[in-house]
Amino acid sequence: MKKNLVAIVMGSGSDRPIMEEAEKVLKNFNIPFEVKVTSAHRTPEQTMEYAKTLEERGIRVAIAGAGAAAHLAGAVAAWTTLPVIGVPIDSSPLKGLDSLLSTVQMPGGIPVASMAIGKAGAKNAALFAAAILALSDPEINKKLKEYRDEMKKAV
Amino acid sequence: MKKNLVAIVMGSGSDRPIMEEAEKVLKNFNIPFEVKVTSAHRTPEQTMEYAKTLEERGIRVAIAGAGAAAHLAGAVAAWTTLPVIGVPIDSSPLKGLDSLLSTVQMPGGIPVASMAIGKAGAKNAALFAAAILALSDPEINKKLKEYRDEMKKAV
Amino acid sequence: MKKNLVAIVMGSGSDRPIMEEAEKVLKNFNIPFEVKVTSAHRTPEQTMEYAKTLEERGIRVAIAGAGAAAHLAGAVAAWTTLPVIGVPIDSSPLKGLDSLLSTVQMPGGIPVASMAIGKAGAKNAALFAAAILALSDPEINKKLKEYRDEMKKAV
Amino acid sequence: MKKNLVAIVMGSGSDRPIMEEAEKVLKNFNIPFEVKVTSAHRTPEQTMEYAKTLEERGIRVAIAGAGAAAHLAGAVAAWTTLPVIGVPIDSSPLKGLDSLLSTVQMPGGIPVASMAIGKAGAKNAALFAAAILALSDPEINKKLKEYRDEMKKAV
Amino acid sequence: MKKNLVAIVMGSGSDRPIMEEAEKVLKNFNIPFEVKVTSAHRTPEQTMEYAKTLEERGIRVAIAGAGAAAHLAGAVAAWTTLPVIGVPIDSSPLKGLDSLLSTVQMPGGIPVASMAIGKAGAKNAALFAAAILALSDPEINKKLKEYRDEMKKAV
Amino acid sequence: MKKNLVAIVMGSGSDRPIMEEAEKVLKNFNIPFEVKVTSAHRTPEQTMEYAKTLEERGIRVAIAGAGAAAHLAGAVAAWTTLPVIGVPIDSSPLKGLDSLLSTVQMPGGIPVASMAIGKAGAKNAALFAAAILALSDPEINKKLKEYRDEMKKAV
Amino acid sequence: MKKNLVAIVMGSGSDRPIMEEAEKVLKNFNIPFEVKVTSAHRTPEQTMEYAKTLEERGIRVAIAGAGAAAHLAGAVAAWTTLPVIGVPIDSSPLKGLDSLLSTVQMPGGIPVASMAIGKAGAKNAALFAAAILALSDPEINKKLKEYRDEMKKAV
Amino acid sequence: MKKNLVAIVMGSGSDRPIMEEAEKVLKNFNIPFEVKVTSAHRTPEQTMEYAKTLEERGIRVAIAGAGAAAHLAGAVAAWTTLPVIGVPIDSSPLKGLDSLLSTVQMPGGIPVASMAIGKAGAKNAALFAAAILALSDPEINKKLKEYRDEMKKAV
Repeated sequence: MKKNLVAIVMGSGSDRPIMEEAEKVLKNFNIPFEVKVTSAHRTPEQTMEYAKTLEERGIRVAIAGAGAAAHLAGAVAAWTTLPVIGVPIDSSPLKGLDSLLSTVQMPGGIPVASMAIGKAGAKNAALFAAAILALSDPEINKKLKEYRDEMKKAV
Repeated sequence: MKKNLVAIVMGSGSDRPIMEEAEKVLKNFNIPFEVKVTSAHRTPEQTMEYAKTLEERGIRVAIAGAGAAAHLAGAVAAWTTLPVIGVPIDSSPLKGLDSLLSTVQMPGGIPVASMAIGKAGAKNAALFAAAILALSDPEINKKLKEYRDEMKKAV
Repeated sequence: MKKNLVAIVMGSGSDRPIMEEAEKVLKNFNIPFEVKVTSAHRTPEQTMEYAKTLEERGIRVAIAGAGAAAHLAGAVAAWTTLPVIGVPIDSSPLKGLDSLLSTVQMPGGIPVASMAIGKAGAKNAALFAAAILALSDPEINKKLKEYRDEMKKAV
Repeated sequence: MKKNLVAIVMGSGSDRPIMEEAEKVLKNFNIPFEVKVTSAHRTPEQTMEYAKTLEERGIRVAIAGAGAAAHLAGAVAAWTTLPVIGVPIDSSPLKGLDSLLSTVQMPGGIPVASMAIGKAGAKNAALFAAAILALSDPEINKKLKEYRDEMKKAV
Repeated sequence: MKKNLVAIVMGSGSDRPIMEEAEKVLKNFNIPFEVKVTSAHRTPEQTMEYAKTLEERGIRVAIAGAGAAAHLAGAVAAWTTLPVIGVPIDSSPLKGLDSLLSTVQMPGGIPVASMAIGKAGAKNAALFAAAILALSDPEINKKLKEYRDEMKKAV
Repeated sequence: MKKNLVAIVMGSGSDRPIMEEAEKVLKNFNIPFEVKVTSAHRTPEQTMEYAKTLEERGIRVAIAGAGAAAHLAGAVAAWTTLPVIGVPIDSSPLKGLDSLLSTVQMPGGIPVASMAIGKAGAKNAALFAAAILALSDPEINKKLKEYRDEMKKAV
Repeated sequence: MKKNLVAIVMGSGSDRPIMEEAEKVLKNFNIPFEVKVTSAHRTPEQTMEYAKTLEERGIRVAIAGAGAAAHLAGAVAAWTTLPVIGVPIDSSPLKGLDSLLSTVQMPGGIPVASMAIGKAGAKNAALFAAAILALSDPEINKKLKEYRDEMKKAV
Repeated sequence: MKKNLVAIVMGSGSDRPIMEEAEKVLKNFNIPFEVKVTSAHRTPEQTMEYAKTLEERGIRVAIAGAGAAAHLAGAVAAWTTLPVIGVPIDSSPLKGLDSLLSTVQMPGGIPVASMAIGKAGAKNAALFAAAILALSDPEINKKLKEYRDEMKKAV
């Protein structure tokens, strides 16, 4: 069995329908991944433990989705030097403007790579993780190029 | 020597000129306080340790000021059940809209009490801390009422 | 019969479904509270009378929810030195951006502690009130810590 | 000596340079007016007394300028049935978006007539007051039409 | 038969359900009014003719409702010196932020009195018109005060 | 002497430093143009007359720049069927968000072609006018292509 | 058979229901047009080829509709000197604010003429294309004036 | 001489003072990089050629900074499957809200990893590139951890 390379983290089980867009892409690319529900605010200890052990367990990229004052991606990034991709989720009345700014406006020193709000962002988070992994995995690199070609045909 | 009752936390030393508005009010009220620079993202361990020990050290209210994707107040609130007051600071090009939404839009379960952006918010954070402490300290309560009276005369 | 410690105020009966999130939490914590519908604009006299007598009646924290140009929390805070927590409600076409800014951007001198827009904010307002009361009530403090533990398990 | 017909109210003395634009227009139109500094939040009693006695003193239109969570116009409107004109002032980092929404988004029942943010709004508030007074004062009506003609020549 | 005192103008027949809130109030106050659909952009000649003759026909206040780049109130105000009240309508994807800014941000010289976005604004436009008319009509003034009293009872 | 092909209209003389960016481009392209200061609100008659006679005088494209509730482009478009290009100017505290939405959010039926806020928009308005004129003027078309080539070299 | 004069381009087939508003107008005006689905991001080569050959194939105006980070109009404008009209589509949670800013805020040098967000914008894009073509086609010019007259009757 | 691993691309030479923050970090990490000024709109051919050949030349991560309707990162991402990091620059009157939304709101299929607006974002773009490279370069990984440690000491 292959080790998980990507961790998909989300602040609440209710974020799953959005984050499943990322799961679909990773399955499509045969990239082993794990899914974890942990909150930056309600379970900070668990989030810390989870984030701190990502690298030693072989995870190479973390994807974190959260809504409102979306701190999850930043919290994960604070505890690991792995690349962390943030997905702002539009679960509050402000329609994702809050989660986008909370995710993307990270202060200098601790980067989070923000994707678009909602499903498009979740999908692209997985594609971006694939692009990172493709740098050292010719198989994924090949699939990424095939994916682009299929997309072109689909348009 | 009296124990510190209020902790003023900020993400960066450059936030000090804003947060000094809070310090001035607390001094004015003779409320002992401490000032700590610690970042939710750059020094998460220190922030965690600091927040977790606030209550046992006798601190009763925490004030946290930060800019951009301002997670500091939320991060402190995640590690303590003390009342945490957030001050959004306008240190990014978005003029505090980002820090306001990152501070105030906390998900259900972990409250942060957000004040206004910038100096007015820092000042009010200290006044709000005083209002909390006044509930069990007649001296502060009296000063709070005198402060209001002086403000009326000043207008 | 125990005295009410928290007052939940709202500008209109139609805000009740949002503010009930606060009521549920207070019931859960066995914190006696009262609910009052009074408008900063339509019944200013009643709002003034109500706010001015809160402290003498033993209320320790006021929670005020309102939509649009949400002045209620500020109006209550103008008439009392008790801690006032504001809940911006998304009842206008601007989806709560108006009520958030009207609640949180208080000028220096009269603080209002703003929570998030809508139900999450109403829930957190009650939790924040509990955190304030917990400072002098070990029973509530214990419950607050249990609440956090349960929340952790629920995530 | 003629009775004052217009009351210019502002939340703080620092708003004066903006509100002077209204004063200039009223002087130009020979409309007697008074200027009052009173805060909805810091001096609510004074604001209430002032607003409640406007009508009996012969004032016909109130102009209220305030910044941030600008409640002054709404607070005046709550205590009088006279027409109240609001001028949002850009004194916070949000550049008047906060004061505009706090002024204009009044709930159904208590109208405030909002003008533009800042100096243009203060000037127009006085012109709008003149337009109201012109309905029963042919002199002002004539001046209003002359003002327009001069403006046309100036463009 | 009494002359119409208020003109309710709207940019499109589809704005009627919003503007009916104004009609209801005026009926309630027995203020005779007329309703006109005319567009600042599609029928500028008709809008000009209509606005230019308002005063001579005895109209004393104009209420103009429009959505998107809502120029109608400003266009009417350009052709008359009567008081013009604007109602921003949320008929575009931007939910009234566009119509609000297009209505309220009038340049110095030509005032428009902006109300809140949507139904609350339409209702308040009529109440504000009533407040203007009440200055010279004791009957309307009395009704305005009764209306406030009933509102207080309703809260 | 060649007839003017482009009309540059602006709401106020103070908009000139922005609109000069358009003048520079037209001079560079040897496209004869005229400059007119006229306000949609303060001089509606002049604006109407000017707009109505544009076509018969041989003007082929109108460029209209205005700030705040920027109605000028829409007002010109209401009186002519010529292509009208709008330039939102950032002359209010809202930094052009108001003028952009007032210019671009035109209702179906009367188009205005909006450019970017400020100087970039004024420059592009002239380039867009040139692109329109180039459709029937090979000389301008050639210059347009040369302009692009020079721009490439400059980058 | 007449050559196509207008090209309607859209980033995705799902944008068709919006862009059909443009098609209806062009049919109404008997202006021959073509419809192309091509994405600035997913099929950049096809977009480039399509844009580069527009002029030589006789197309005179391009209309490009896209949502979210709407780059299509700008991408087409980068490859052709023909007039390019952009239609921001509200297909993301931000309701078109993102597509509007991505379309309209073009840097100096490469203009895109932005219309309103959504259906009103698509309709106006076609009317604006007609206004451009009308400059050298008396038949379209006549129809444009008739269209305005019918619109007036319809209001 | 080592091959360049990172490409820093910017839309204009005037973006250099912002993007230099990225250069400083890469120098600090001894990561060889190149700097290229090329515009998505003004030099699309050059941008295409540059982006298409990044991978074959050994570049592993591209960083693209641009202002206003910031299409550069998306344009580069359209032509390569390498990870592309976007830096929104606040060079327009909208203070980076436009460049942020144009950069981050990419449609599903072509990801861009957006950083914060301005200098903090440029710095973090380089740190994020380092985090990607660290996955297969223990030297960079070690430096990244040292950098974090130094940052902790600096706070």
